[in-house]
Amino acid sequence: MFSNTSEIIEILGTIAFAISGTFSAMQRKLDVFGVLIIAFVTSVGGGTIRDMLIGDTPVAWMRDVQVCLVILVTSIAAIIFKTYIRKLKVTLFLFDSLGLGLFTVVGLQKGINFGLNPGICIALGTITGCFGGIIRDILLNTIPLIFRREIYATVCIFGGVVYLLLLLRFNVNTDVSKFLVIALIVATRIIVVQKRLSFPRMRY
Amino acid sequence: MFSNTSEIIEILGTIAFAISGTFSAMQRKLDVFGVLIIAFVTSVGGGTIRDMLIGDTPVAWMRDVQVCLVILVTSIAAIIFKTYIRKLKVTLFLFDSLGLGLFTVVGLQKGINFGLNPGICIALGTITGCFGGIIRDILLNTIPLIFRREIYATVCIFGGVVYLLLLLRFNVNTDVSKFLVIALIVATRIIVVQKRLSFPRMRY
Amino acid sequence: MFSNTSEIIEILGTIAFAISGTFSAMQRKLDVFGVLIIAFVTSVGGGTIRDMLIGDTPVAWMRDVQVCLVILVTSIAAIIFKTYIRKLKVTLFLFDSLGLGLFTVVGLQKGINFGLNPGICIALGTITGCFGGIIRDILLNTIPLIFRREIYATVCIFGGVVYLLLLLRFNVNTDVSKFLVIALIVATRIIVVQKRLSFPRMRY
Repeated sequence: MFSNTSEIIEILGTIAFAISGTFSAMQRKLDVFGVLIIAFVTSVGGGTIRDMLIGDTPVAWMRDVQVCLVILVTSIAAIIFKTYIRKLKVTLFLFDSLGLGLFTVVGLQKGINFGLNPGICIALGTITGCFGGIIRDILLNTIPLIFRREIYATVCIFGGVVYLLLLLRFNVNTDVSKFLVIALIVATRIIVVQKRLSFPRMRY
Repeated sequence: MFSNTSEIIEILGTIAFAISGTFSAMQRKLDVFGVLIIAFVTSVGGGTIRDMLIGDTPVAWMRDVQVCLVILVTSIAAIIFKTYIRKLKVTLFLFDSLGLGLFTVVGLQKGINFGLNPGICIALGTITGCFGGIIRDILLNTIPLIFRREIYATVCIFGGVVYLLLLLRFNVNTDVSKFLVIALIVATRIIVVQKRLSFPRMRY
Repeated sequence: MFSNTSEIIEILGTIAFAISGTFSAMQRKLDVFGVLIIAFVTSVGGGTIRDMLIGDTPVAWMRDVQVCLVILVTSIAAIIFKTYIRKLKVTLFLFDSLGLGLFTVVGLQKGINFGLNPGICIALGTITGCFGGIIRDILLNTIPLIFRREIYATVCIFGGVVYLLLLLRFNVNTDVSKFLVIALIVATRIIVVQKRLSFPRMRY
């Protein structure tokens, strides 16, 4: 199961997003089954859209049933342990940022493996990182987080540019590049939220 | 057209969901064309998502134009005959449950035909059964029914487990298994709604 | 880049929808980045759904990175020039109608090139023309325009029928047919909106 770095990153991202999905759904007071569905969709949504766009079907989670088990176990564990977590909002934010960083790198690397244009690789990384959360918010009938307050998708695009520069321009080792970009995305998200950074809103 | 059981089940499911989609859209006071679109989406939505996920494209309704005709005729008939139906809410519920049972079995069998993992087959059955209604509710801008009151998708998962057990463990004939599981899903839905069964809601 | 009529139509449609998406997002007061995403989704959404349905993957914008650049430049230009536009509502409507006409023809022709059934070609044209706007409205959390006031998708279906008649029945030249149908769709939209034409709403 853990034969290489890519798989470890994918599993960690799956766990991080399953936790963030579970907590989001509990905030909306869904029943147990609804919570599990939202955890699943948040976790696999980005990769599913990515695979349908590039035509790599059956999509990833259909070929690897362990992903489904990881989500199920993680989500149930999150439901059970939630009473022990005091600063739930902070925990939720950290897991969401971690998932964002991990899945952006997964999507970037998949674009590179498919030999796609660098700009498209960055788009794929951003889609893999962000779309789980977008679908989750559409299902819960709210304007997706990505279009509201803080800088979100831009962090993925920024991470994607850095990743491609590290790999293609500076010939940094793939695993080192991955680790650096994941750390960069998580750190940037924390700074954005702590400093309340945002782009100016448009008026009409 | 009706060369085998699978096709008959598919056509019946299409009709059942076209009727349920038509009535749902009429409740939201859409115009005639909006009603037809919602009928179409409710009817083919689940199968379309399923086919895009497994990469069986062009998706089913594009290869079988008769499906589109069946939906058109059914939807127009439903619009015309609605004044004759007194207990519309009950009628709508019954057609929705029937469609759920029929399409879950279609999705399950398609997963088996593609040689997918049993767990994935159950997911495909659930997606085929439920996603038409989910897309319908997203288009009508409400929290999908599946995340609200009653047990819904769980009935499909339950039906999927029974179907695989009948086929693979007890070697029951395919057509008999299909009929039993459709009846099981419809009956379970009726019991769930009549007894007002639901899972506990999560709190945060 | 502009080697033939098809590409010119596609680029013009992309520009028209990028402008309409930009203005729509600015009306909802998104930040700069949100405006760019909505411009992108409105522009490529219809073609992306079309390509995923027929299995022509990677979807179009992934194979032609210039489309992304066109959208970026158009959207930024629209943001900058908006203060010079007085009748913004009329401008927005005209660009939306133009995009609808152009993209419907792109989708129709793609269906014909794939050898699909005429009815499915008309559906593909309608999907290519309308779905960018539908996804935009779902992301902005409103009931899609298509289901509200005026006749919308029906104009695409009407244009599709005329296109197939011109091509297959009257053997009109492809480029001439394209031009006629684009003009027809834009003109019909203008008449529909000016005369406030609409289908009767259904009641329940």
